[in-house]
Amino acid sequence: MKTTTLKLALAGVLGLSSLSSLAATELENLMKDDNQWAHPRKDYANTGYSRLSQINKGNVRNLKMAWSFATGVNRGHEGAPLVINDVMYVHTAFPNNVYALDLNDNQKIIWSYFPKQDPSVQALLCCDNVNRGLGYGDGKIFLQQNDGTLVALDAKNGNKLWDVKVVDTKTGASNTNAPHVIKDKVITGCSGGEYGVRCYISAYNIKDGSLAWRAYSTGPDSETLIGDGFNKDNPHYSALSVYEDVNGGNKEGGSFKALTKDQMKFPEKELGTRTWLKPQAIKNGYEHGGGPTWGWYSFDPALNLMYYGTGNPGTWNPDVRPGDNKWSMTIFARDVDTGMARWGYQMTPHDEWDYDGMNEIVLWEAKGKKLATHFDRNGFGYTFDRTNGTLLVAEKMNPFVNWATKVDLKSGVPVKDPKFSTHQDYNAKGICPSALGVKDEQPSAFSPKTGMFYVPLNHVCMTYEPVESKYIAGQPWVGATLTMFAGPDGVMGGFMAWDGLKGKSAWYNKEKFSAWGGALVTSSDIVFYGTLDRWFKAVDAQTGKELWKFQVGSGVVGNAITYSHKGKQYVGVLSGIGGWAGVAMNLGLTNETDGLGAAGGYKELTKWNAAPGGGAMNVFSL
Amino acid sequence: MKTTTLKLALAGVLGLSSLSSLAATELENLMKDDNQWAHPRKDYANTGYSRLSQINKGNVRNLKMAWSFATGVNRGHEGAPLVINDVMYVHTAFPNNVYALDLNDNQKIIWSYFPKQDPSVQALLCCDNVNRGLGYGDGKIFLQQNDGTLVALDAKNGNKLWDVKVVDTKTGASNTNAPHVIKDKVITGCSGGEYGVRCYISAYNIKDGSLAWRAYSTGPDSETLIGDGFNKDNPHYSALSVYEDVNGGNKEGGSFKALTKDQMKFPEKELGTRTWLKPQAIKNGYEHGGGPTWGWYSFDPALNLMYYGTGNPGTWNPDVRPGDNKWSMTIFARDVDTGMARWGYQMTPHDEWDYDGMNEIVLWEAKGKKLATHFDRNGFGYTFDRTNGTLLVAEKMNPFVNWATKVDLKSGVPVKDPKFSTHQDYNAKGICPSALGVKDEQPSAFSPKTGMFYVPLNHVCMTYEPVESKYIAGQPWVGATLTMFAGPDGVMGGFMAWDGLKGKSAWYNKEKFSAWGGALVTSSDIVFYGTLDRWFKAVDAQTGKELWKFQVGSGVVGNAITYSHKGKQYVGVLSGIGGWAGVAMNLGLTNETDGLGAAGGYKELTKWNAAPGGGAMNVFSL
Ligand SMILES: O=C(O)c1cc(C(=O)O)c2c(n1)C(=O)C(=O)c1cc(C(=O)O)[nH]c1-2
Ligand SMILES: O=C(O)c1cc(C(=O)O)c2c(n1)C(=O)C(=O)c1cc(C(=O)O)[nH]c1-2
Repeated sequence: MKTTTLKLALAGVLGLSSLSSLAATELENLMKDDNQWAHPRKDYANTGYSRLSQINKGNVRNLKMAWSFATGVNRGHEGAPLVINDVMYVHTAFPNNVYALDLNDNQKIIWSYFPKQDPSVQALLCCDNVNRGLGYGDGKIFLQQNDGTLVALDAKNGNKLWDVKVVDTKTGASNTNAPHVIKDKVITGCSGGEYGVRCYISAYNIKDGSLAWRAYSTGPDSETLIGDGFNKDNPHYSALSVYEDVNGGNKEGGSFKALTKDQMKFPEKELGTRTWLKPQAIKNGYEHGGGPTWGWYSFDPALNLMYYGTGNPGTWNPDVRPGDNKWSMTIFARDVDTGMARWGYQMTPHDEWDYDGMNEIVLWEAKGKKLATHFDRNGFGYTFDRTNGTLLVAEKMNPFVNWATKVDLKSGVPVKDPKFSTHQDYNAKGICPSALGVKDEQPSAFSPKTGMFYVPLNHVCMTYEPVESKYIAGQPWVGATLTMFAGPDGVMGGFMAWDGLKGKSAWYNKEKFSAWGGALVTSSDIVFYGTLDRWFKAVDAQTGKELWKFQVGSGVVGNAITYSHKGKQYVGVLSGIGGWAGVAMNLGLTNETDGLGAAGGYKELTKWNAAPGGGAMNVFSL
Repeated sequence: MKTTTLKLALAGVLGLSSLSSLAATELENLMKDDNQWAHPRKDYANTGYSRLSQINKGNVRNLKMAWSFATGVNRGHEGAPLVINDVMYVHTAFPNNVYALDLNDNQKIIWSYFPKQDPSVQALLCCDNVNRGLGYGDGKIFLQQNDGTLVALDAKNGNKLWDVKVVDTKTGASNTNAPHVIKDKVITGCSGGEYGVRCYISAYNIKDGSLAWRAYSTGPDSETLIGDGFNKDNPHYSALSVYEDVNGGNKEGGSFKALTKDQMKFPEKELGTRTWLKPQAIKNGYEHGGGPTWGWYSFDPALNLMYYGTGNPGTWNPDVRPGDNKWSMTIFARDVDTGMARWGYQMTPHDEWDYDGMNEIVLWEAKGKKLATHFDRNGFGYTFDRTNGTLLVAEKMNPFVNWATKVDLKSGVPVKDPKFSTHQDYNAKGICPSALGVKDEQPSAFSPKTGMFYVPLNHVCMTYEPVESKYIAGQPWVGATLTMFAGPDGVMGGFMAWDGLKGKSAWYNKEKFSAWGGALVTSSDIVFYGTLDRWFKAVDAQTGKELWKFQVGSGVVGNAITYSHKGKQYVGVLSGIGGWAGVAMNLGLTNETDGLGAAGGYKELTKWNAAPGGGAMNVFSL
């Protein structure tokens, strides 16, 4: 495997000459055109921002539903359709059907694609039958099926042009991410953190689906694509350990005292193997180390770097994997042509709470600086210098975050509070946030106009009891039992505006349940997002004041989008409750700890939603 | 069985004293209150008419969606919710979930009921997993599950108060009808015409679910509840046969020449057995004679008569059941307390086309006459004197109807055109209408203000080839192969206003596909109905001119309703494509003859609908 990866990486380097292909230019032009929505988060920077302003604060109260399209598929409908040249491409939860709707002819179905997937794949999806959407480039629509197959469809007629198997479901791996087209590559991820899958991110050549490169989250540097220049400006990110007691701390009350930068030993190599100190089972821990990559990927064309986060280390029982467990819970910046890592920063070393670090990284500029902001599941909002990974800001997104008192900016290390450390067969109580994070996959939006981030939030705490769990290939390997409950606000969610440089919120709205859908912000300073109790809302970007709301058919876990057609601005969002918050109700589970703890916390959802959630695209206009 | 039925019938007679129970009065008051929608078709007369007029011709173009509720169930959503005292009761296709939505608290779910039904029941439903809605009375919500169980739920909290098995699924029987509360009885039907089920209609006592009476469609007079006064004023309805050649005609080119009234022998007894001339299989034909009763039931309190139609004789191959096959295809008027038949008129004697006669019978008055109008599948629009069944009008609803040249008013007999007779192993071509009828289950509406009926229509012709088919209990027993295609209009459907006394249409709108949802008409002279290509429309009751339309999530096979809440008028309709027209696409069937012929005719539906149809309640207001 080592040589293959290296060879492929080299092939990528040599392919540099094809960078400015026509396809890449077309996609870049589409992303710049606000009439379109051609990329999962609108643009390479993952802003979820549109300059469309026909719908403004004065008239948004008149917004009304223009049309809807029921997908005929139940369960969580995450992500958003693409809109390209008067065609809307809608995807669904498993079985991941795709519909091309003709906006010029009353949404007539131009073509549809019905993947034939083995129904048993559904059992591999930890957090509902979700799929986060489609990619577009080179005249092709890309679908990452839950069963690991990446498919390229002719955007004109839906004909399959190529497909390739990205992950092997026999190992318990699956896919839920949207494929992201970046230049002449299609980037796709891997789910399976709850199955002990050793995950990776893969780049395929857009023309023929051949693998360009693959970077594992754990393992040898040759396979994580870590080379000489890695973490050049922040070598302490490559420390062997950032905590004292990293071996001895694995007992009840044991602490993981943060080392200062001076106390740390760096830079080190091969940390993807060496930070997994004890074999977990038969193999080295890193070989079942998780680090899933099922989120959103951003890209800076000038730096030629793509950014993404890796998820939790497997298993959720931390005691069986002493060490920092690199490179789980890490933001990576990689050269998109070669996959080689420029920098990598681990947010939650030796995770004890499933604070899966895969949330989006949004690229923006301020005060002449190239920045990247990331709202992590662990409850901190991070801002980096994205050129080299230097950590500029790391602040609690909400004061209820208690597992760490702070992140030491100099060392980059979160200072854990031993009271909330978790250990096998000890039921740790009152940990905030819950494993769902202060925010989960639901992406935030950024407005260059207000300079603010708009962040959908969970407000949930938990009890967490790690338990012994044997690894069996292809079987769930969770290793913890959870219950979840509302945080100190007394509600389960919120939505806020965040200042990425100050590291604090400008305004904060409470929400009855998690705001589990992605945000949209427009240049008319309106923010759109949906809620699990079926509201689709417009709020004032400056104040958070509610300007409008509409009750859609099922809870929203989709991301709001906007586009324009024949001169008219439309706003749209998928409804269909699900995702982790909705999985228990979708499956009819009612024990507190069912659905990895979601059943108890979200039981009130059945007062607002039929189960399972029925999927639909909802489109609004003035 | 004979004695039981008789005993029960007698019990009903003796129970006359409880007629004006409080429960019956409450329901009658609710039906009169236009703020409510307490009965499947609004009132006992099955008018689908409301005096609400806030939404009028001047403002209807401003109608916008107020809220929607996805049921989380796919497949055809027929019927309509009930609205009673600020609570909306929504039902779904199989598994027939029920939701009570609090209109005072943003449609919060007060209670839900999830029947546990054997999934194999779905295979028994000929024409999709449909359920036509709920009944209300005595503080109870009644659900007729597809598996034959009639359930009484406490309207306040959804607790099950009683249940009873109406039909036996082992025989291939099932249920799709809405239970209709009439006075102190719950009336419910039987499906299974395509399984050789000997169907009946049943009346249960609302208090405890005990059987009050049961009337078979075929069989001895004691079991069809036919007694002495039956057809008193029209004894020729009780003729042994209405056709010449009724034995000899069962061959290719054989004719069934209509007898004149003078030529007919009447009144006769025991016609439910004697008009099944040859044993079809091991048993007498009537024992597997069909006559399903899955439609809508109306009631005249002054006459104490309820009206309903029976469906097709089993099997669809006419050659194996020579004779008139009474009392299939019959409109019955029965005393609601005893079940005894007052009159019965057979619309399609010796059916050769599956012109299942179960469509609604709407009660109205004109020129001082008590009338009943019925739009039959066979393409004739009938108006009767409902006191005694005298046939006043029988006219083709559309000139394309060709299986009969006319209905002889004197004899009541349709004059068949031998060119379109069907016979075993002969593929009869160009028959109009198709087995779907000029109208199927989708109920019409009647406005006492305009004096007009508003009728959703199919415009489909067929080829029909009867084939030999062995009866096996519980197995499909169709006995014919069909293909369907658009009628002479070149489209598959229409919608018209019909004058019930003149027997002709006042206006006629073409529709691309069948209008498979039920109509609503209001006193502001607006007619609402939905289409399979996802439009929900308002048209002018006087002219048919389109005033407004909205694209809902899935094709409409539900019935439009209106109610008011806190002084505001709402219009609502279930979406979720299905029923016979949609069953093939819901199941992904594509051979021309699949779905009993619907696959070919309706294949274009996949250009407008995701498959299977996702169910949702859609509510609109100004
Ligand atoms: O470890 C994994 O591989 C993995 C996968 C997924 C997924 O693919 O949906 C989720 C998670 N973890 C997870 O931790 C999580 O909170 C989560 C939420 C959701 C969702 O769609 O709502 N998926 C996932
Ligand atoms: O013979 C029967 O028992 C029976 C049952 C049903 C039903 O219960 O839905 C239909 C029919 N027949 C039928 O002939 C028919 O056209 C039909 C249409 C539909 C529908 O819901 O769209 N059901 C039925």
